[in-house]
Amino acid sequence: MTATLPAAQTQALLMRQGEVAVAAAAVPTPGPHQVLIEVAAVGICGSDVHYFDHGRIADFVVREPLVLGHEASGTIRAVGAEVTNRSVGQRVALEPQETCGRCPQCLAGRYNLCPEVRFFATPPIHGAFTQYVVLESHRAHPVPDALSDDAAALIEPLSVAVWAAQKANVQPGDRVLITGAGPVGLLCADVARARGAAWVGISDTNEYRMHVALDRGANQAINPTSGPLADQIEPVNVILECSGATPAVQGAFAAAAPAARIVLVGMGASTMELPVAMIQTKELTVTGTFRYANCYPAAIALAASGVVNLDGLVTGRFGLAEAQQALQASKTDPHALKPMVYPAR
Amino acid sequence: MTATLPAAQTQALLMRQGEVAVAAAAVPTPGPHQVLIEVAAVGICGSDVHYFDHGRIADFVVREPLVLGHEASGTIRAVGAEVTNRSVGQRVALEPQETCGRCPQCLAGRYNLCPEVRFFATPPIHGAFTQYVVLESHRAHPVPDALSDDAAALIEPLSVAVWAAQKANVQPGDRVLITGAGPVGLLCADVARARGAAWVGISDTNEYRMHVALDRGANQAINPTSGPLADQIEPVNVILECSGATPAVQGAFAAAAPAARIVLVGMGASTMELPVAMIQTKELTVTGTFRYANCYPAAIALAASGVVNLDGLVTGRFGLAEAQQALQASKTDPHALKPMVYPAR
Amino acid sequence: MTATLPAAQTQALLMRQGEVAVAAAAVPTPGPHQVLIEVAAVGICGSDVHYFDHGRIADFVVREPLVLGHEASGTIRAVGAEVTNRSVGQRVALEPQETCGRCPQCLAGRYNLCPEVRFFATPPIHGAFTQYVVLESHRAHPVPDALSDDAAALIEPLSVAVWAAQKANVQPGDRVLITGAGPVGLLCADVARARGAAWVGISDTNEYRMHVALDRGANQAINPTSGPLADQIEPVNVILECSGATPAVQGAFAAAAPAARIVLVGMGASTMELPVAMIQTKELTVTGTFRYANCYPAAIALAASGVVNLDGLVTGRFGLAEAQQALQASKTDPHALKPMVYPAR
Amino acid sequence: MTATLPAAQTQALLMRQGEVAVAAAAVPTPGPHQVLIEVAAVGICGSDVHYFDHGRIADFVVREPLVLGHEASGTIRAVGAEVTNRSVGQRVALEPQETCGRCPQCLAGRYNLCPEVRFFATPPIHGAFTQYVVLESHRAHPVPDALSDDAAALIEPLSVAVWAAQKANVQPGDRVLITGAGPVGLLCADVARARGAAWVGISDTNEYRMHVALDRGANQAINPTSGPLADQIEPVNVILECSGATPAVQGAFAAAAPAARIVLVGMGASTMELPVAMIQTKELTVTGTFRYANCYPAAIALAASGVVNLDGLVTGRFGLAEAQQALQASKTDPHALKPMVYPAR
Repeated sequence: MTATLPAAQTQALLMRQGEVAVAAAAVPTPGPHQVLIEVAAVGICGSDVHYFDHGRIADFVVREPLVLGHEASGTIRAVGAEVTNRSVGQRVALEPQETCGRCPQCLAGRYNLCPEVRFFATPPIHGAFTQYVVLESHRAHPVPDALSDDAAALIEPLSVAVWAAQKANVQPGDRVLITGAGPVGLLCADVARARGAAWVGISDTNEYRMHVALDRGANQAINPTSGPLADQIEPVNVILECSGATPAVQGAFAAAAPAARIVLVGMGASTMELPVAMIQTKELTVTGTFRYANCYPAAIALAASGVVNLDGLVTGRFGLAEAQQALQASKTDPHALKPMVYPAR
Repeated sequence: MTATLPAAQTQALLMRQGEVAVAAAAVPTPGPHQVLIEVAAVGICGSDVHYFDHGRIADFVVREPLVLGHEASGTIRAVGAEVTNRSVGQRVALEPQETCGRCPQCLAGRYNLCPEVRFFATPPIHGAFTQYVVLESHRAHPVPDALSDDAAALIEPLSVAVWAAQKANVQPGDRVLITGAGPVGLLCADVARARGAAWVGISDTNEYRMHVALDRGANQAINPTSGPLADQIEPVNVILECSGATPAVQGAFAAAAPAARIVLVGMGASTMELPVAMIQTKELTVTGTFRYANCYPAAIALAASGVVNLDGLVTGRFGLAEAQQALQASKTDPHALKPMVYPAR
Repeated sequence: MTATLPAAQTQALLMRQGEVAVAAAAVPTPGPHQVLIEVAAVGICGSDVHYFDHGRIADFVVREPLVLGHEASGTIRAVGAEVTNRSVGQRVALEPQETCGRCPQCLAGRYNLCPEVRFFATPPIHGAFTQYVVLESHRAHPVPDALSDDAAALIEPLSVAVWAAQKANVQPGDRVLITGAGPVGLLCADVARARGAAWVGISDTNEYRMHVALDRGANQAINPTSGPLADQIEPVNVILECSGATPAVQGAFAAAAPAARIVLVGMGASTMELPVAMIQTKELTVTGTFRYANCYPAAIALAASGVVNLDGLVTGRFGLAEAQQALQASKTDPHALKPMVYPAR
Repeated sequence: MTATLPAAQTQALLMRQGEVAVAAAAVPTPGPHQVLIEVAAVGICGSDVHYFDHGRIADFVVREPLVLGHEASGTIRAVGAEVTNRSVGQRVALEPQETCGRCPQCLAGRYNLCPEVRFFATPPIHGAFTQYVVLESHRAHPVPDALSDDAAALIEPLSVAVWAAQKANVQPGDRVLITGAGPVGLLCADVARARGAAWVGISDTNEYRMHVALDRGANQAINPTSGPLADQIEPVNVILECSGATPAVQGAFAAAAPAARIVLVGMGASTMELPVAMIQTKELTVTGTFRYANCYPAAIALAASGVVNLDGLVTGRFGLAEAQQALQASKTDPHALKPMVYPAR
């Protein structure tokens, strides 16, 4: 069922805050319902950078060396004994989570809220800065040839955007504001357009990112330092908050039309002063997203159709040995959006 | 089409902050789509008390003498020329609002968000502490004989609860927490039970109100001064916040189960420090209610079937001349829940 | 982890169309995530009777002796090695299905549509007319002491009703028509009331069942042989079709108010002539139910609270050796609703 | 408030089945909330042709000469005394209906189901084959300069498609089948794409229309005469039935994936034999559309953004005097899609 596979592989480990090292590791054997994937490309996410910089995110602390990276693509090199729905040689986007399938959240279709979720690159679960990983077969989503390895890896952040826009129920005719023009904000803007939004505005203080947003098709880029956001635009039906910045969150509410839906995607302070009277008098709906559930097929379709351009986000290419440079790219390059790591190089 | 009607009537006016006076006024003539109603009973709402105490609520300032009261029942005494769906003699619950019917909110069925809404007892619109009022005929909802005048008047706060529970989509099997056991909180508990909630808990610091809540069928009454609310109960799927108290709002979030729905009903501070990280990691949905839309028929049915006991809320009975006492009842009587005013007495 | 268990048990097998025999079988061993349950009570469903009478339902053919029965309660007697959420001695209602947990339907929370579902008493999967069965632990739902063994068994048909009413989104104020007053129709009426329906009518040609429906709290019982159903009642917002009878389905549409929701629960002819123009001009929504998903907790709560009386449905009690009589009870007793089989007797 | 307007105008009247005549009529005066519109372009709908051919549609019978045409654009030439939201000179798309604003359907946002709806070109309400019409101001939707008069007129059938796709809740990733490639079917395909559908297939027996569908961006055109539709495509999540043809409706069900949503848009036979067992075992949802509600703004945005090409549907241009030819174009020209009538010519 499998070609000859090497016994050992190389991986990049976050040894401790601020230090990445390359080391050898065994190539894992897929369980009965798992596949073994040779990793092709891995995008660097803000959470990877945060673990590198701080050694922790909230209660998740890096106590042992950890393989980072959870935005990954690759090719199936072996399949477990019970796998009938995938085959060796398939190119796939990795949905980097394993869930229990038995708890009320999983049974209700909200597996992203499974209390036993094991998510890549979240201590103590290893990620994808490595040559080979195993994954439950149904979490290895086949991609068409039209998708590059980079694009297949970036199906992960695109799924974050698909989930956010779905939670907001973006509809044709809606006016949609995105706050924060980082990779997830840019993808949220793309997905809002792909769902038929009448107008998509995006706010950021970074002029370069505002420019990128307009290039990708946003109708307006707004710099909140030029004055209150609500003064610069007409009211909106949907707000996808992707900055995590408290002033951005607070400023966005004033731009909300009656019955607007607000989705908090970007992670920031654990508590914020919010305008509850406005939530009441305008009957706003506020929710947040925690990763995603059941979004990969839609994300792959949007990318494959050309509606969302994932390759255009890539701003740097690194081998495993350069993983530390990749993690620091956003500090050294003001234009950095999405550095990629290629374990096979 | 109409019996002989008096030309003049008596009404109670809030002259200024803290002062109510009785005065004569003309009996209005119904417009073509309106009915003239002889008011039978009017409940006193916290907002009436707030106008009395402060002369304003937020931007709504009492600049001219104002008739208070918006929880009202009565009998139709005349109908306008175009009215075909109501007739003289019908007992009705008054839905105390007029909306434009032409704006996007009205056309979408969200008429409570109509920017041109004219709501009883909200300056400069007069309310129901008066013997006769006019109302659009479709806002005069017939009630069955089984409903007392008091109960018909209290269809108004019951509609607030029906709307809140509908926004929260309370389902059979849900665990529902109500924060605040005032009249609206008690009614929210009743409606949650009426929708099949598996467990209804209600929190308040007033021991008497906790007792009333249990008497009405709540499964548990929680005193938040005894310790963190989330430590006293199992996680809940729905929170209906009816206190407006910032600590109650904040404390409630910790009790929310994954994917819980939180509805902010009680009005309090215009901004509050809220746990946004919790909204994200548990994917909570937070919304608020502004009055109600299309709730009267359901509220009438719930009251008529006996599932919700409205008469049991009444704790004082006053004539028009005693309107000021009625407005002060909640300060003088620790057991006051719902004082009623009877303009015909 | 387990008390001493017998090695052998007795079960009732459908040998072929019309013939049931008692035989010995091994007591199964629970897998790592399974529990072993000693069966206490089993309700007889119309599908059991259909297999007995015809040896098949649609494409499901009884080719080997089959243990019937899927409405079951019991007590956990052993738990598998990985089970942490259940313990020996717990009384449970059995959700009689196993699903794959990996397909798009399972992952989306619609596990009842899993193409690999294994459902009790559906060839070739055995059912519960036996002393011991194994079940995935999360499908063995603990019940409170307040529920009798009979009631715990009848959580199964109650879940069918919970699912149907949820699909119809029965709301306070709704007028709900149930067509067919068999056990499922009666339970649908109960659940509609438990969700706050303003009016529940139920139609059947069997006068005894009409009487039972009224006894259980229906507002009106309608005999369709007395004239067109739509002539006998005011328009309704929800129709829960529980008869499977083509004339009942057809007649119900005329009683539907604009935007009504119609749920086809009862199984009947595979095709029916339906009034599509009426679906269009009234914008009706028509859907069907296939078993249920995630309904047991809500059903248990409704039964435990006393809102739904399950014990009142039981009309006969049989031992395993009398299983064939139990299956024929509905033919011999015009008042039969729910005969029960007790494997331990 | 208004420029000088002529006192008389010309209109085309359906005198009786098969006969259209041009006649003079008075220019109407707008009521207080109405605007007077000079009609620019009017599309011909299948219903217009049906009235011409048969003198009736179902219970709507042409008993007096009737102005046909309900897909119209124009320019506001006068506004009523109370109109503040529109002004003379604005180019508008006409939403050709007036509703009561007071019934439960209107108040719930389902004004298309208003029992007192007055819809253009539906006896006895006149339509738009005339130089001037009056309309409630909020039903005259301003269009941007980018939209031609033709496109502005065709916002009407586009709204039909927007409503259908909204009812089906077409989502990114969905596979969507359209049955029938007439103007509404083609627009449904466009809107499905505009909502992010992963795949849009369209079936028709007319090879020319299949060709047009592919040209407009459908992924596949299917000829049902080549074999069962379900054999020619993979299962779909959404079916938008736009043919009204009984075999198309019946054949579509077999192509439905579990939990698929089916919307019946095309009008055909009043009853059809439908596969109810399939509705149950796959838990399909079937609904129908009756015109649309609140769709014009979204339709205008989709057309203005270029996502939907309305001008490309136009296949013939006629003056008022040629209205009868326009109504017969679909019979004489096999490539006819959307003939237009221009009352100003």
